[in-house]
Amino acid sequence: MGIEASRAYSDAIGMLDTESERGDRAEVVAIMTPNDSHHRYAVAALDRGFDVICDKPMTNTLDEALEIVRKVDSTGLVFCLTHVYTGYPMVRQARALVEDGQVGEIRLVQVEYVQGNKADESDPDPAGGLPWRYHPVRGGPSLVMGDIGTHAHNLVRFVSRLEVTEVAAEIGHVIPARPVDDYGAAMLRFDNGARGTFWVTQTAAGVENDLRIRVSGTKGSLEWHQERPTRLTFKPLDGPLRVYTPNGPGTLPASARACRIVAGHPEGFHEAFANIYSDAAEAIAARRSGREPDPLALQFPNERDGAVGVKFVEAAVASSDANGIWTDARLSLEEKS
Amino acid sequence: MGIEASRAYSDAIGMLDTESERGDRAEVVAIMTPNDSHHRYAVAALDRGFDVICDKPMTNTLDEALEIVRKVDSTGLVFCLTHVYTGYPMVRQARALVEDGQVGEIRLVQVEYVQGNKADESDPDPAGGLPWRYHPVRGGPSLVMGDIGTHAHNLVRFVSRLEVTEVAAEIGHVIPARPVDDYGAAMLRFDNGARGTFWVTQTAAGVENDLRIRVSGTKGSLEWHQERPTRLTFKPLDGPLRVYTPNGPGTLPASARACRIVAGHPEGFHEAFANIYSDAAEAIAARRSGREPDPLALQFPNERDGAVGVKFVEAAVASSDANGIWTDARLSLEEKS
Amino acid sequence: MGIEASRAYSDAIGMLDTESERGDRAEVVAIMTPNDSHHRYAVAALDRGFDVICDKPMTNTLDEALEIVRKVDSTGLVFCLTHVYTGYPMVRQARALVEDGQVGEIRLVQVEYVQGNKADESDPDPAGGLPWRYHPVRGGPSLVMGDIGTHAHNLVRFVSRLEVTEVAAEIGHVIPARPVDDYGAAMLRFDNGARGTFWVTQTAAGVENDLRIRVSGTKGSLEWHQERPTRLTFKPLDGPLRVYTPNGPGTLPASARACRIVAGHPEGFHEAFANIYSDAAEAIAARRSGREPDPLALQFPNERDGAVGVKFVEAAVASSDANGIWTDARLSLEEKS
Amino acid sequence: MGIEASRAYSDAIGMLDTESERGDRAEVVAIMTPNDSHHRYAVAALDRGFDVICDKPMTNTLDEALEIVRKVDSTGLVFCLTHVYTGYPMVRQARALVEDGQVGEIRLVQVEYVQGNKADESDPDPAGGLPWRYHPVRGGPSLVMGDIGTHAHNLVRFVSRLEVTEVAAEIGHVIPARPVDDYGAAMLRFDNGARGTFWVTQTAAGVENDLRIRVSGTKGSLEWHQERPTRLTFKPLDGPLRVYTPNGPGTLPASARACRIVAGHPEGFHEAFANIYSDAAEAIAARRSGREPDPLALQFPNERDGAVGVKFVEAAVASSDANGIWTDARLSLEEKS
Repeated sequence: MGIEASRAYSDAIGMLDTESERGDRAEVVAIMTPNDSHHRYAVAALDRGFDVICDKPMTNTLDEALEIVRKVDSTGLVFCLTHVYTGYPMVRQARALVEDGQVGEIRLVQVEYVQGNKADESDPDPAGGLPWRYHPVRGGPSLVMGDIGTHAHNLVRFVSRLEVTEVAAEIGHVIPARPVDDYGAAMLRFDNGARGTFWVTQTAAGVENDLRIRVSGTKGSLEWHQERPTRLTFKPLDGPLRVYTPNGPGTLPASARACRIVAGHPEGFHEAFANIYSDAAEAIAARRSGREPDPLALQFPNERDGAVGVKFVEAAVASSDANGIWTDARLSLEEKS
Repeated sequence: MGIEASRAYSDAIGMLDTESERGDRAEVVAIMTPNDSHHRYAVAALDRGFDVICDKPMTNTLDEALEIVRKVDSTGLVFCLTHVYTGYPMVRQARALVEDGQVGEIRLVQVEYVQGNKADESDPDPAGGLPWRYHPVRGGPSLVMGDIGTHAHNLVRFVSRLEVTEVAAEIGHVIPARPVDDYGAAMLRFDNGARGTFWVTQTAAGVENDLRIRVSGTKGSLEWHQERPTRLTFKPLDGPLRVYTPNGPGTLPASARACRIVAGHPEGFHEAFANIYSDAAEAIAARRSGREPDPLALQFPNERDGAVGVKFVEAAVASSDANGIWTDARLSLEEKS
Repeated sequence: MGIEASRAYSDAIGMLDTESERGDRAEVVAIMTPNDSHHRYAVAALDRGFDVICDKPMTNTLDEALEIVRKVDSTGLVFCLTHVYTGYPMVRQARALVEDGQVGEIRLVQVEYVQGNKADESDPDPAGGLPWRYHPVRGGPSLVMGDIGTHAHNLVRFVSRLEVTEVAAEIGHVIPARPVDDYGAAMLRFDNGARGTFWVTQTAAGVENDLRIRVSGTKGSLEWHQERPTRLTFKPLDGPLRVYTPNGPGTLPASARACRIVAGHPEGFHEAFANIYSDAAEAIAARRSGREPDPLALQFPNERDGAVGVKFVEAAVASSDANGIWTDARLSLEEKS
Repeated sequence: MGIEASRAYSDAIGMLDTESERGDRAEVVAIMTPNDSHHRYAVAALDRGFDVICDKPMTNTLDEALEIVRKVDSTGLVFCLTHVYTGYPMVRQARALVEDGQVGEIRLVQVEYVQGNKADESDPDPAGGLPWRYHPVRGGPSLVMGDIGTHAHNLVRFVSRLEVTEVAAEIGHVIPARPVDDYGAAMLRFDNGARGTFWVTQTAAGVENDLRIRVSGTKGSLEWHQERPTRLTFKPLDGPLRVYTPNGPGTLPASARACRIVAGHPEGFHEAFANIYSDAAEAIAARRSGREPDPLALQFPNERDGAVGVKFVEAAVASSDANGIWTDARLSLEEKS
């Protein structure tokens, strides 16, 4: 992979130790390991002065999440959580339209993330040993909620700019022999009184990666569908529906930052990921040089978003365990100064 | 309207009385009056020997619904409930694929019915007097659930052939001054262990008539969207997705009965309604002549479906009133002999 | 079919003779017979004072077409040609947007009408005898051009309000043993200098009824697709694309007249046909009562449109026979007074 | 850009000279300069032993194109022409289905490439000086044909595996003051007797990058649309339509090679370009090591495809200049040994 032998490490903590003492030390640490190790590696990296880019879910427990938040606060380092869908230009356009007031006061939110990759009843293959995702400690409290539920929850917050205050959930598995959750249904209450629904599963046979969101406000409804990511539909209260496209007419600056190419040429998953990395790079470069970062770069999810997501999973699982009672999902975190 | 003066009545019961004594009496009574009058007119019609075609929701209370069921049983007359979406060819194709086993054992069901026709905060116009739908007695226990929730619930049962056993719901209104419900969210448990979500609202600004259903079984997922009713998508567990069209290749007999025209020419709402009327007409004609009806005609919703729908609304409202606890939604009705 | 025995005729001309002498004579004559008989029946009906609703193509020859035009002019009767696609609300919306100047000066037109109903190489079944459509005299000079080419040509004129001045065409059959045309390609020049392409075939295996049109002007492009008839896309030069829907926001009066139902409920082929009949009925009723018809009803294609269509087919066939030379397609007809 | 100062050149030929004498000489030369310079740089690079990756159109004249072909033949070097759409997985799937016989004998081909980027009548801005694309020598014989017509033509050949034998064309500009072509219409005849239509323009206001192809054979029709590149529709003669997706069920090896990611995550323009570069890299690596390249890598367009494209443009322009007469478009080139 083009890494010189002296810098290829067999052990993550060892890598952090060694790199932190080099003059040409790594500029950033990206964590793409099993969920239960995120906390340990993130804290170790932050302790050694590394900015961190980390896979979701940020951690498997809230205590771990809060420790990362405190560590980021005390070190002043950058922490970026790669909720990839926030990197799509049309998701950023949706958020920008909300922030611009074009959707009005938001009243209803619908999100669903439906996959079929665990639809096969023979998954996981018993002969193959259990993958870490299926392990109750390594994979976290709820496979489906950690894997895709956190994406759905974060997308709702990212676009609507609302916080979930309470959740009533039903989480479980429809494939009988499966040891982990493969679906999660929930009803949501938001801090402004809006209401919402939430549906995630990995067991819908034949479905690929059907993430959808609809956000309805007093002035209109926004709809985005990941399988056709280059279209953002806006249905105004009083006018024909409009479709925004990357770099097309009406693209707002927060979205334009995420567009690489002339309108009409599709971009996708890799570019969305790259947008998040670019934004993190801008934040890191600004921190290092002591300048203010481009405010449009600060759209990437951070440690606070991660902690709110972990809290949501905990609240949803607790609700489901208590047969669906409405459960507090709020997490109070000071705004980052 | 071409009705002769002697048969134009100012009063419904009076009409039933007079018509029932004519030699050329009306062949069937169709009820399209405010919800709270369905029961009275239906019972009166059945008592006088008329077959009945009735708008949904069948009644506003379960007691009324059960009385209609008993009355239909004791008279042997035909009762047809016009859940119009069951008349669309591709909805019937979906059900036929389920019945044919092509979808496998059903594990997940998603239904949403989203409209924007009550998104305007000034609806209803206070100067105009309250329409009957907004009246708590005339309109029924829940405006949104009666108006479109019963459609969504019936569509789920029609396609999946499953019954909802329990529901946990949140029903209310997001427009502050509104005296009636304008959204309903629910989680569903089915009699075979499947799980589902349910979302209806009339307050999504700019949305027209977005009724969608997805039914996932062990062999694949079916998806239908009312705004493009001529496509039924089937995503098999192991194969490229397929799209069925009215009278297109693979049309099953239960669907073909509902297609009037060569493949590629769209049909819509009027034809779906006509299909239900045609089926009811076949059932009525068969009853009168003492012959067996075409079994494919018996797809139309009947008084039992109506009662199950009323029970579902009651259960969902009760769940929501009790802050979302899981509530029994089952209604035991003998199969019609 | 509910026709009384004394008015069920075995012979068309006999029917016209007998009906024309009854006091309760038929109000209109609708001609849905093989193409080569349209002229004879239309002239006979007009001669006996009947208004006429006639299938397309109006005639198989231009001489016949011109005779009908003269006959309509001399009798003052109504002649309606059922190009069904002009009855779709979104086609009328497209035309209304053009007439309203919202598309600007039109520069480019694209039309295609692609079907697969003659894709099977064994069609027509040699054992079954040749259907009349395949007969060179009865079916007309070019099967595909008469069947669907006239629809495509008329749709272009209806929406763009332009006339084709010249055509260069290639018409033939790709199924070797077939005795008639099954595809027609053409390039078009319009009276305002616009350019266009034209493509029709009935031999595209698996395609159902894929009629599409795109009209581009200096201010934007309109796109309509028959297989999803309830959407009209308008892509403005400087703004996000908009989608119009029947009775949705922005519906213009000429389109609203063709909408029967609240936005979001699909209508299709039958209603499009009915719109044309309704318009013809309005024109006939106005003629009889000596009043002016609703101007919005006069959108239905008439004998002049039919003659222009027959001329276009003749010009295209002549071009193709001359190996594609540009051929005059203009037909000068006085505007109807 | 990370290029060391000693290797940043101010002159292309100088760069080739210098690099060709370095021990660590550049591995490949990529040409992305104005059209009229492709030939000169390509020949110079080949003469100095460099493999070449070149933008389309390959050259502005056929003589130049043929010289490149001869040069590639005599040097044995790799020449890759970046027709980017051939790098999309679903375009490769389409070709693979054709090669596998699933589409049957091809009878009809439709291609259109419609953009709106030159729809503004004030383009090019007269104050800005004429861009090279608008210069008759630098831009080539026909702006629209070189820019996007060659893409459309190459896509047809790539998917159908047929050659255009004759073309009848109408090429010109609809914006009056424009000095170059902005639309091109054509009818096509293929070497197996199939027929086709061709339509390209950059003047359709509001359209982004609407490249579409439909290929119909005796067994079914393939449809691909660049604006939604992750779907390939196959409409079989006798069965419901199927949709293929990148890495989805039914992906053939020639397509799988171009897929980077699990099904359901969109890829787009950048990845398509990268696929062509990867394939060229494989061909170059194989040449250098004297081994056979992966045959699936040899899908990238080469100098022969480029010459056939230049010939097509010449033939189309000649046809249009001769008022649309059918013109021979064949170019005989020995298959590459």
